[in-house]
Amino acid sequence: MQSRDADHTPVTVIGLGLMGQALAGAFLRDGHPTTVWNRTAAKGESLVAQGATLAASVGDAVAASPLVVVCVSNYEAVHELLDPLGEVLDGRILVNLTSGTSRAARDSAEWASRRGSTYLDGAIMAIPPAIGTADAAILYSGPRSAFDAHESTLRSLGAGTTYLGADHGLSSLYDVALLGVMWSVLNGFLQGAALVGTADVDAATFAPVANTVIGTVTEWVPGYARQIDEGRFPALDSTLATHVGAMEHLVHESESLGVSADLPRFIKALADRAVADGDGGNGYAAIIEQFRKPSGVRG
Amino acid sequence: MQSRDADHTPVTVIGLGLMGQALAGAFLRDGHPTTVWNRTAAKGESLVAQGATLAASVGDAVAASPLVVVCVSNYEAVHELLDPLGEVLDGRILVNLTSGTSRAARDSAEWASRRGSTYLDGAIMAIPPAIGTADAAILYSGPRSAFDAHESTLRSLGAGTTYLGADHGLSSLYDVALLGVMWSVLNGFLQGAALVGTADVDAATFAPVANTVIGTVTEWVPGYARQIDEGRFPALDSTLATHVGAMEHLVHESESLGVSADLPRFIKALADRAVADGDGGNGYAAIIEQFRKPSGVRG
Ligand SMILES: NC(=O)c1ccc[n+]([C@@H]2O[C@H](COP(=O)([O-])OP(=O)(O)OC[C@H]3O[C@@H](n4cnc5c(N)ncnc54)[C@H](OP(=O)(O)O)[C@@H]3O)[C@@H](O)[C@H]2O)c1
Ligand SMILES: NC(=O)c1ccc[n+]([C@@H]2O[C@H](COP(=O)([O-])OP(=O)(O)OC[C@H]3O[C@@H](n4cnc5c(N)ncnc54)[C@H](OP(=O)(O)O)[C@@H]3O)[C@@H](O)[C@H]2O)c1
Repeated sequence: MQSRDADHTPVTVIGLGLMGQALAGAFLRDGHPTTVWNRTAAKGESLVAQGATLAASVGDAVAASPLVVVCVSNYEAVHELLDPLGEVLDGRILVNLTSGTSRAARDSAEWASRRGSTYLDGAIMAIPPAIGTADAAILYSGPRSAFDAHESTLRSLGAGTTYLGADHGLSSLYDVALLGVMWSVLNGFLQGAALVGTADVDAATFAPVANTVIGTVTEWVPGYARQIDEGRFPALDSTLATHVGAMEHLVHESESLGVSADLPRFIKALADRAVADGDGGNGYAAIIEQFRKPSGVRG
Repeated sequence: MQSRDADHTPVTVIGLGLMGQALAGAFLRDGHPTTVWNRTAAKGESLVAQGATLAASVGDAVAASPLVVVCVSNYEAVHELLDPLGEVLDGRILVNLTSGTSRAARDSAEWASRRGSTYLDGAIMAIPPAIGTADAAILYSGPRSAFDAHESTLRSLGAGTTYLGADHGLSSLYDVALLGVMWSVLNGFLQGAALVGTADVDAATFAPVANTVIGTVTEWVPGYARQIDEGRFPALDSTLATHVGAMEHLVHESESLGVSADLPRFIKALADRAVADGDGGNGYAAIIEQFRKPSGVRG
């Protein structure tokens, strides 16, 4: 069931919470005939006023379009809604933008294939007001042919429409991995702001200096990535043993100034474990081995 | 004791380890008459071949130049070397590039002022081969007049010569704060690489995507800094409560894929504490309150 006119493929959006409403609104603005459905029907009213068709049932909503986007609270809700449906799913492309784990995504892909649907999993790395703009990154995984066939339609949801690969778990995996990067950067900044704050340095004064360092680190990331892929971690600049010495300064400085030393201690404990594993003469990327171990496995 | 020719101020470098040798070499390349001293004199040989003068004693080394740079292993070594000296220190500008805590720097400033020296503390955020290049950032703190008078000479050591303020503790404080930012960014990247690695995604494939996210976070940093300085943390996008929900995904994903969940759990525990303190409806910057508390102080 391929659309003849790629730019105006009819779409269905199931789930009209904050995010679902934003998704349907973006499709409408781009001229896609849009069918919507929500458990609480009233949330569809403003979309109907913008030209959407409100379906009377989930089954009717699925039947209305070749491309069906689902965005509800969690995967349990997805399956509560779609499992009871019969052969109406057969031949549809199902795009699940509900947040969940990589396992849930892979399981849903199997479930969908048993029903004759082509399944794409997606992760939205944006807030509802950003949907449809240059700022919205949405990550997709699943069969490339399905993504390629509907890329231009999906692009209505944001300029950062990105295909990651055939493994349906990838979008969820990248999602949490990238959020982890985001929180780590923010925590590093906050720890630093708390430290310099003890000397009455404004966070606004510290921010550009911190950003310069963050920018420098991004220049090292590709080189460290290459080492990780090659499984060899020669110290190009500082060794882990040298890092540990400086980490001790960070711990002591935090303790003696009365700011939290929790993050400094965490950073040092991680490097200490790598040194204990024999990586003291290697560079920082050797710590990947610690991240690859399940928690609690030491030495 | 001001130099008449700012560009060729005579300088002394005390301590010729890896870093001290790099510092003296950079001064020599820029045409500064350079006197050097090291406990183990042999480390001065190649510098003498490049035109340096090897002093016979620490006292002679200090007497040789108006500007004296010290770079040894730690502050204990600094004081072992300089405390026994008499009035030769009077009127000199002492620039201490040895790594240490902000308290050690402030104490050394007091010690120097009792001896009639003007004291600048510095922190080198570079490795020896980068000294004298565009890549070397060196942070200074202490009296602005002393920095201004010798800025052009100090700039021989690196283009990133930066004055932070009059408080002598600032250079050490920024040093550890910025290293903490660096380690945090690297750890976030490594955690993410371990996660996507479970789906056979190369670190080199993940690196540019991670860097894009890191770049996005740097765009938020100034806004969060403003909130920190104002002490108000309205959620402009996601609330901390929403973040915690996504952090739970990160923890579960890490656990179920058998990679370390230590960093994810650390991230979530920190946010949980902020939520417990009543910040669930606030934005991420509210977590600064957790970083400001000494470790172990909860609620
Ligand atoms: N909002 C964001 O910033 C954001 C960002 C990235 C990703 N996401 C993800 O997008 C998804 C939706 O988020 P949201 O912000 O739209 O949440 P929301 O505003 O709370 O809306 C939840 C939606 O799920 C529906 N729903 C929940 N349980 C249901 C069930 N058992 N049966 C039928 N419908 C059910 C709700 O229907 P009712 O209206 O009838 O309750 C509503 O349409 C989530 O997975 C979220 O993680 C959101
Ligand atoms: N190397 C880097 O990448 C780097 C980067 C940033 C900051 N730093 C900082 O720069 C400083 C020096 O580092 P480095 O790499 O040059 O170390 P290094 O190669 O180990 O050299 C240490 C220097 O300190 C001297 N020293 C130590 N204890 C002494 C004592 N009690 N009396 C007299 N001299 C003493 C040593 O003299 P001998 O030769 O006689 O042993 C040598 O000159 C440290 O504070 C370090 O943290 C280094």
